[in-house]
Amino acid sequence: QPAAQPEPAPAPPADLPEGMGPLPTEVPVPADNPQTEEKVELGKILYFEPALSKSGNFSCNSCHNLGTGGVDNQQFSIGHKWQRGGRNAPTVLNSAFWSAQFWDGRAPQLEDQAKGPPLNPVEMASMDETEVVARLTEAGYGPLFEKVFGANALNYDNMAKAIAAFERTLITPDAPFDLYAQGKADISEAAKRGMQKVVEVGCTSCHSGALFTNNTFQKFAYGTDEGVKSVSGKDEDDHLFRVQSWRNVALTAPYFHDGGVKTLDEAVRVMAKTQLDTELSDGDTADIVEFLKTLTGTQPQVTFPVLPRPEGHALSWSD
Amino acid sequence: QPAAQPEPAPAPPADLPEGMGPLPTEVPVPADNPQTEEKVELGKILYFEPALSKSGNFSCNSCHNLGTGGVDNQQFSIGHKWQRGGRNAPTVLNSAFWSAQFWDGRAPQLEDQAKGPPLNPVEMASMDETEVVARLTEAGYGPLFEKVFGANALNYDNMAKAIAAFERTLITPDAPFDLYAQGKADISEAAKRGMQKVVEVGCTSCHSGALFTNNTFQKFAYGTDEGVKSVSGKDEDDHLFRVQSWRNVALTAPYFHDGGVKTLDEAVRVMAKTQLDTELSDGDTADIVEFLKTLTGTQPQVTFPVLPRPEGHALSWSD
Ligand code: HEC
Ligand code: HEC
Ligand code: HEC
Ligand code: HEC
Ligand SMILES: [Ca+2]
Ligand SMILES: [Ca+2]
Repeated sequence: QPAAQPEPAPAPPADLPEGMGPLPTEVPVPADNPQTEEKVELGKILYFEPALSKSGNFSCNSCHNLGTGGVDNQQFSIGHKWQRGGRNAPTVLNSAFWSAQFWDGRAPQLEDQAKGPPLNPVEMASMDETEVVARLTEAGYGPLFEKVFGANALNYDNMAKAIAAFERTLITPDAPFDLYAQGKADISEAAKRGMQKVVEVGCTSCHSGALFTNNTFQKFAYGTDEGVKSVSGKDEDDHLFRVQSWRNVALTAPYFHDGGVKTLDEAVRVMAKTQLDTELSDGDTADIVEFLKTLTGTQPQVTFPVLPRPEGHALSWSD
Repeated sequence: QPAAQPEPAPAPPADLPEGMGPLPTEVPVPADNPQTEEKVELGKILYFEPALSKSGNFSCNSCHNLGTGGVDNQQFSIGHKWQRGGRNAPTVLNSAFWSAQFWDGRAPQLEDQAKGPPLNPVEMASMDETEVVARLTEAGYGPLFEKVFGANALNYDNMAKAIAAFERTLITPDAPFDLYAQGKADISEAAKRGMQKVVEVGCTSCHSGALFTNNTFQKFAYGTDEGVKSVSGKDEDDHLFRVQSWRNVALTAPYFHDGGVKTLDEAVRVMAKTQLDTELSDGDTADIVEFLKTLTGTQPQVTFPVLPRPEGHALSWSD
């Protein structure tokens, strides 16, 4: 038999707008939290761990359900004692690629972000770090942390590190657009028109590159939430929000930081109007939506973890 | 090379009490709901589906978490709008083996049982079957039901059938006791003493056989819940409850139908006192608990399902 010829790398389609391309497969990893298989596994367990919450009712996955695009599709998530916060839960999918976490960017990294929800009174509502660590200790996490981080390593910082490491695996490659951009598959004519339209209209000045966000904070004159200003207190930061990626956006309704817009169609029109002072025709809107739908990638496959638990008694939950 | 000798079947240990043995590997399946791989897969998706609940917050897995022994370790589960019911959530693990479902046996089969929670006002709180079916339709379940049940098959009965088929796969073999009973591994001396003690004291008159339940309803003179009488209205059924299996019991604290007893140790003492008028010594209690711990089996491994969802808009949730 003759030796198999190496497959020629397929050519990207000629009409691919500049900058667009397939989702990167490597995520940035901070030097002080290298990825290891065991750390990712521990992070996964913690991601599904209701013991991070005071009531025992909420895990990260409650609001960022990996079965539904890393969101809960609520306007405002249901949290401790059925409270709801004031911001829509963004997806955790591909969050390792964002320049900063939260709509207002107040957490620089996933490690910082993961320390928030367990103590947030309208989310998981644990009293303090000590309480969370005590519950994890009672559950039997000691040996699991030791295996990953060494002796006496069950602490809040390492919890956040492990969760962040897991989140860095939640990337969604091989969206129809990605296969198209690699010359491996086609997308619909409507989607191709949409792909050109977003360039023509100017969307890609903010939603640029393979991530479909330039990862900057931009003025969005909508609603009463002050965005970055609510963190910095500075007037120049008023109504600045991180440009949301379009990756998996067809799965993450409702839209915007207040979840106030129910459909992707309407979100596209609002964006065109507020950001670019443009009224899109129905046809152009539909084409753009078709294009955005091609950005839904392969969702992460995870084996549902068996959580460590004490034998013969329950962890203590409270309201 | 000589042909490999077949491994001799290991002999069960000589001290194994009569009737005790490893968990059966085959579950009873009703003639009108045969197991198929695709049905089980659909059932798994539905088991993790928050769209069975009105608020979008609860799936079966919320209260019967497969990561924590098929329970939530709450006294009374948190349900719609943070309501709590009056009964402790039993495990779904091995439930295919029980003679009837619920503490009072009011659902003859898993198929009947699964129709309850979506409409229970303190659990998932959907208004009626039509509402649940409409939400599943909008989510995109049509083709999934069609593949399993044929054309136009998305209905409430088939939903229950699929969930029941999935539940029939949630069995937990190879507990330390099972390996011991098969002569494959040892258990501690304390556990062996406990194993003899439960026979001597009389526990196994009810908790008998490989399931550690004779699957009958027995008087339990404890608490104010009337058990089977609350269903039948008959005085002779007062305080009758299904004998709970000991399988995985170390994971299912708190104990009894009202979750009123926090530890397995205390549950064992209460049982001895109420059911057998016996005060167990501390040593005997500890030995029995050690034995019960050997009944924790291998927990089911499931791949977390990606749920069908509409593109560009959310399902409608409400309070
Ligand atoms: C009760 C709901 C709830 C729970 C539980 C919850 N989150 Fe969130 N999450 C949110 C909301 C709401 C936001 C947006 C808040 C904001 O921007 O001010 C958010 C933001 C995030 C972000 C930022 C994403 C982005 O694009 O900026 C990440 C990452 C994240 N959460 C991960 C987690 C992790 C990890 C956990 C568990 C430790 C968790 N969340 C628990 C509701 C929740
Ligand atoms: C000047 C910058 C800018 C331009 C131009 C822009 N966007 Fe945005 N886009 C943003 C920002 C910032 C957000 C986050 C808004 C928020 O806080 O809810 C966003 C959010 C979105 C969302 C919602 C994402 C979500 O998950 O809620 C969609 C959809 C969207 N943009 C599409 C478009 C389209 C289509 C265009 C062109 C017609 C466009 N954008 C032009 C900055 C921009
Ligand atoms: C909000 C909590 C909650 C939700 C959601 C819930 N359950 Fe339950 N489940 C319970 C409680 C409490 C009981 C015991 C009720 C009783 O005996 O009266 C129970 C009983 C059961 C039983 C009987 C087990 C036995 O040993 O008798 C099964 C099986 C079961 N549930 C499966 C399911 C399935 C399948 C779903 C989803 C369709 C579901 N549950 C949703 C709380 C819940
Ligand atoms: C006459 C019948 C009978 C005898 C004898 C009996 N039990 Fe039980 N057992 C039951 C019933 C019925 C239940 C369910 C009680 C309820 O409704 O909470 C139960 C429940 C239990 C539970 C709690 C299971 C759970 O998930 O909450 C444990 C543990 C237990 N029995 C252990 C024992 C031990 C140990 C003995 C002997 C010392 C014993 N039982 C003797 C009938 C019996
Ligand atoms: Ca959203
Ligand atoms: Ca229990």
